[in-house]
Amino acid sequence: MIIIGERINGMFKDIARAIKERDPRPIQEWARKQEANGAHYLDINVGPGSPDPVGAMQWLVEVTQEVSELPLCLDSTKYDAIEAALKICKHPAMINSVPAVQAKMERVFAMAAQYNAEVIGLAMSEEGIPKDADARVALAAELVANAMAFDLPPDRLFIDPLVLPCNVAQDHGPEVLRTLREVKLISDPPPKTVVGLSNVSQGTKNRELINRTFAVMAMANGLDAAIVDACDDELMAAVATARILLNMDIYCDSYIDVFKKSNRL
Amino acid sequence: MIIIGERINGMFKDIARAIKERDPRPIQEWARKQEANGAHYLDINVGPGSPDPVGAMQWLVEVTQEVSELPLCLDSTKYDAIEAALKICKHPAMINSVPAVQAKMERVFAMAAQYNAEVIGLAMSEEGIPKDADARVALAAELVANAMAFDLPPDRLFIDPLVLPCNVAQDHGPEVLRTLREVKLISDPPPKTVVGLSNVSQGTKNRELINRTFAVMAMANGLDAAIVDACDDELMAAVATARILLNMDIYCDSYIDVFKKSNRL
Repeated sequence: MIIIGERINGMFKDIARAIKERDPRPIQEWARKQEANGAHYLDINVGPGSPDPVGAMQWLVEVTQEVSELPLCLDSTKYDAIEAALKICKHPAMINSVPAVQAKMERVFAMAAQYNAEVIGLAMSEEGIPKDADARVALAAELVANAMAFDLPPDRLFIDPLVLPCNVAQDHGPEVLRTLREVKLISDPPPKTVVGLSNVSQGTKNRELINRTFAVMAMANGLDAAIVDACDDELMAAVATARILLNMDIYCDSYIDVFKKSNRL
Repeated sequence: MIIIGERINGMFKDIARAIKERDPRPIQEWARKQEANGAHYLDINVGPGSPDPVGAMQWLVEVTQEVSELPLCLDSTKYDAIEAALKICKHPAMINSVPAVQAKMERVFAMAAQYNAEVIGLAMSEEGIPKDADARVALAAELVANAMAFDLPPDRLFIDPLVLPCNVAQDHGPEVLRTLREVKLISDPPPKTVVGLSNVSQGTKNRELINRTFAVMAMANGLDAAIVDACDDELMAAVATARILLNMDIYCDSYIDVFKKSNRL
């Protein structure tokens, strides 16, 4: 499974302060730590309410790229900020994200084609997140069809079925798992799948346990990638173990360390 | 998921000694401990090479039933020992197990009908354990058809797809997960499913991590029951968490304790 490290996000206080004061140290420290622990991509998000999202995003990309060769996952609802970042990315990036809303898909898939980027497509429309798997898969099919119209192959699109917190929307859990499986039937090659893992445990007790349990259950239903806390060692061990049990990596006694060291895709 | 506690088994030295000396204390201690930690059934196995499997099995059942009201899972390849045990079980038991071999199915399903027992049916024939899911499902269908011929409803039959150690038969892992899903399409109601969990980690490092990861992956593919170390707290917490994420139990902050206390089915 592709690990997208979630930590460079202005939602966290240390990152918000670093962005405000243009202090590269916390950003670069987290970039190094996540890479050392097995991340394959680094998510980059300026956080809510930034007065200058374009400038902040570009600065985050620059300082991150000074210390890491990992590809970046550009995480913003402000497409101008994403486009500014795409222009300076050293490696093909991932755009995070676009819903199944026509005008937004056109803007994002055109950018993706121009900059050779991958895209995270959200299984939601203007009406919000549907409850059942069938409606989520229908939105995923819209995303795939639109991506293909812009010559973005389905396997450069990551469908996010949108996981909700299990303490408030428990009935979504099995629907998300079913969506992960059924999305694979949409096209050949099929789209990839991704989840924002920590959403599942918002406001719960045992957050890490819930996160790693859901990660493994989702992998057993075909999940390809997840935005996670790459510095959660128990999560990374669970993911490495699931890869062994799915016959994706060869078993050896040190398979957890091997997985963490394999972060250049 | 139904937890079948594996610990009363002559394969373990303390149980082998207890059986030999007819000392009920270790048996009763493990019965109590497994029940207190959330087991729903107790597996009873006299172990390999017992000189008197019938007498040993009856004695194990008697001393276990003195301290626990849990139903028993009678685990033996000696059907005379199982039949002797069925005669004295206070509650309907589970017969563990029968392969898809005609003469054995006839003997076991007839006993099950007579004593109102559930049955674990193994996805193997005289030729051994098949490698792929399709062949496993075909054997499961034979088991279901034969069970029905003896008026045993499919949902009193637990299909065991037969998990092998991931360090020697890694390619079986995904096939077992697929078997768990596809077995549910055989009949209506479908058969239940069960695995002998610790097999997956025989001879590996990180045994507990591999066990609980596979348990959760199997649950995400519909697993109904597992023979496990019910005293492995991390396993039980992972199972309780998977039940929350599958919307099988209602989330509350103390859901792990609630799960462990719900062991009277």
